[in-house]
Amino acid sequence: MSNIRIDGSALWADLMETARFGGTEKGGIRRLTLTEEDRQVRDWFAAACTRLGCVVTVDTLGNMFARRRGQDETLPPLTMGSHLDTQPTGGKFDGILGVLGGLAVLRALEESGHVTRHPIELINWTNEEGSRFSPPMMCSGAYAGAFTEQEVLDKHDRAGIRFGDALDAIGYRGERPCRATPVAAYFELHIEQGPILEVENRVIGAVTGVQGMRWYEVTIGGKDAHAGSTPMTLRSDALLAAATMIGAVSDIARAHAPQALGTVGLIENRPNSSNVVPSETFFTVDLRHPDDGIVALMEQELRARFKAIAETMGVTLAIRPIWDAPAVPFDPRCVAMVSDAAAEAGFESMKIVSGPGHDAAYMARVAPTAMIFVPCRDGLSHNESESITEAEAEAGANVLLGALLRADLAF
Amino acid sequence: MSNIRIDGSALWADLMETARFGGTEKGGIRRLTLTEEDRQVRDWFAAACTRLGCVVTVDTLGNMFARRRGQDETLPPLTMGSHLDTQPTGGKFDGILGVLGGLAVLRALEESGHVTRHPIELINWTNEEGSRFSPPMMCSGAYAGAFTEQEVLDKHDRAGIRFGDALDAIGYRGERPCRATPVAAYFELHIEQGPILEVENRVIGAVTGVQGMRWYEVTIGGKDAHAGSTPMTLRSDALLAAATMIGAVSDIARAHAPQALGTVGLIENRPNSSNVVPSETFFTVDLRHPDDGIVALMEQELRARFKAIAETMGVTLAIRPIWDAPAVPFDPRCVAMVSDAAAEAGFESMKIVSGPGHDAAYMARVAPTAMIFVPCRDGLSHNESESITEAEAEAGANVLLGALLRADLAF
Repeated sequence: MSNIRIDGSALWADLMETARFGGTEKGGIRRLTLTEEDRQVRDWFAAACTRLGCVVTVDTLGNMFARRRGQDETLPPLTMGSHLDTQPTGGKFDGILGVLGGLAVLRALEESGHVTRHPIELINWTNEEGSRFSPPMMCSGAYAGAFTEQEVLDKHDRAGIRFGDALDAIGYRGERPCRATPVAAYFELHIEQGPILEVENRVIGAVTGVQGMRWYEVTIGGKDAHAGSTPMTLRSDALLAAATMIGAVSDIARAHAPQALGTVGLIENRPNSSNVVPSETFFTVDLRHPDDGIVALMEQELRARFKAIAETMGVTLAIRPIWDAPAVPFDPRCVAMVSDAAAEAGFESMKIVSGPGHDAAYMARVAPTAMIFVPCRDGLSHNESESITEAEAEAGANVLLGALLRADLAF
Repeated sequence: MSNIRIDGSALWADLMETARFGGTEKGGIRRLTLTEEDRQVRDWFAAACTRLGCVVTVDTLGNMFARRRGQDETLPPLTMGSHLDTQPTGGKFDGILGVLGGLAVLRALEESGHVTRHPIELINWTNEEGSRFSPPMMCSGAYAGAFTEQEVLDKHDRAGIRFGDALDAIGYRGERPCRATPVAAYFELHIEQGPILEVENRVIGAVTGVQGMRWYEVTIGGKDAHAGSTPMTLRSDALLAAATMIGAVSDIARAHAPQALGTVGLIENRPNSSNVVPSETFFTVDLRHPDDGIVALMEQELRARFKAIAETMGVTLAIRPIWDAPAVPFDPRCVAMVSDAAAEAGFESMKIVSGPGHDAAYMARVAPTAMIFVPCRDGLSHNESESITEAEAEAGANVLLGALLRADLAF
């Protein structure tokens, strides 16, 4: 369909060059949003886009838009993007590949002299990670209308610094209003952050959507007692009850195999002393499935199982739902463009559902959207050891380019 | 057998008066060993014993001995005692009842004019709790030959302060050598620190020994992975494996009911983040039974179950034994003296095994020994809410007196 190709080594060079901004000894990146390191990479990104003939604008929440003119400037833009901020001990690719892969797309277009019908906007979203200011994906969320600008500006980090002040401090509070103007389509290239593509030996994942997710905080109340003098039958052991519930979470997920996920990642135990029967155990539960109905069913099962365990074990139970992110199906036309672009480029692809949330999940509210996944070693992400190959980066950017060119004709 | 009786209200007044030294707002005591609060209660104790005509000596580790003359000073002393130090948020009775109950015995003897055949020594052991300097029962242990004096002097607390320096600082390094001279018998009155006497509605427990105990540290190694993108079948979830093992510990103890105890009191989980499959979980196991053979069998079962769980769940397993305290049977003659003294005084008693260790466990190495338990509300101990009644305190001290008088005739 097109002979335009990504310059893989230039993309890789960009990835390695920007990895210096916040680079860690272990080869990862610590580049929390709205820090000096974030400013450095933003400056670099703006300059790189400008060199490619783009006009860079910044909105009132610091989201950056690099615009390349189209044949018909009255058409809504085709957009692509991701984020340049990282986790405190993040890797070199999570988010960054989507932005610099987009830059590689702009470069390929520029070098080939191809002008698309639609204008193109490459977006660097502020604070996708949510590590410094919670929640994650706050600024694509605001763009899509999920949060107000003021809400975001008034968030504080754990040091008490206000988002708006941090934004001013790095000089990235722009003039462009932070709201979705009509958008023709949105594509986001990202590492999978999971092991499936690698296990299935596929280079490209055509992401059909983001699974539904619910989070709970669970508190079990028992009675602290001396481990050496309290008969087993007279105990109210909060940790033992929690342990049984942790097993139940796994059982429930496995009962809805293969797509259901159930995780207890965090546990806190009191008084947490070797010879004291625990009096209070707190843990989180993370339930996910691409079908919201199944997520709801899993919650029902969880509530029933937990209640029965608490009654049997003589402990109190409090379940607090703390997050409910409904499943986000992507636009089937955009997903097909990703699959087709992969096939055309000769890459083995597969349909895949995203576990983590992404800026694309908010963009799907305001534009036809899809994502492109490439494998990452051992599924490792949010980790300084996060790793992909140059060939994988290049493949992902080629599919991003191919999907964009398809959308340019279709929309 | 004797008309001598404890003055219960004087004993209660002593308990309440000394509770001021380190007294907390919640009605408990914070009186860590070798602190200023410990010095105050030691001074009070020495003065009280001296007023009753006793001679107080202090050994090189700060153990205090209040000696009342006997008819035959060539006989080895009958001894009794416990400790005046407390946990950081301790109660008013753990240890203290044994020392002040002994003081009440001395007062009853003094007021009745009764002179025993043997001399009597009431002992306040240094650092029973082990909260400041580890391990617990260090100074009765040294007295019984389990530790050398130098080992104890060179222990450091978490602030880096040496035991010997702390002992000098409060002026309680004595001249008396810290080693067991011949001892006729040792009796220790203590709160049960468990719920059994209360549940069984008995005033007195005649303690037949201290159960055997083994402690383990267990480390499970999994692989951290994103909770949203790692299929259940591809996970190595350290916490899920640990949870299954925690259930197994309880199962193993229940399989050796009613005397076996199995507890997981402490757990630490890494990275301990809601949306990350845990990569490393650490927990402790506390196994107890009055029969060392059963404790050994429980360990075998634990090792087999844990190994099978680790293999099934694809995690690594490391079990580190960190403490093995063999069961300590007390002297059957001394136990009978406690039962008989209870019966004579008209108290319902029962044989009971001590879960926690006590100074008496070391004293049993060098003298015929037994303990007397009284109930404590809800089995609560190591807690500012620890509670007993004046009647229970008086009952326990009367049985201590009765057992001592029996031993005075028998040994």
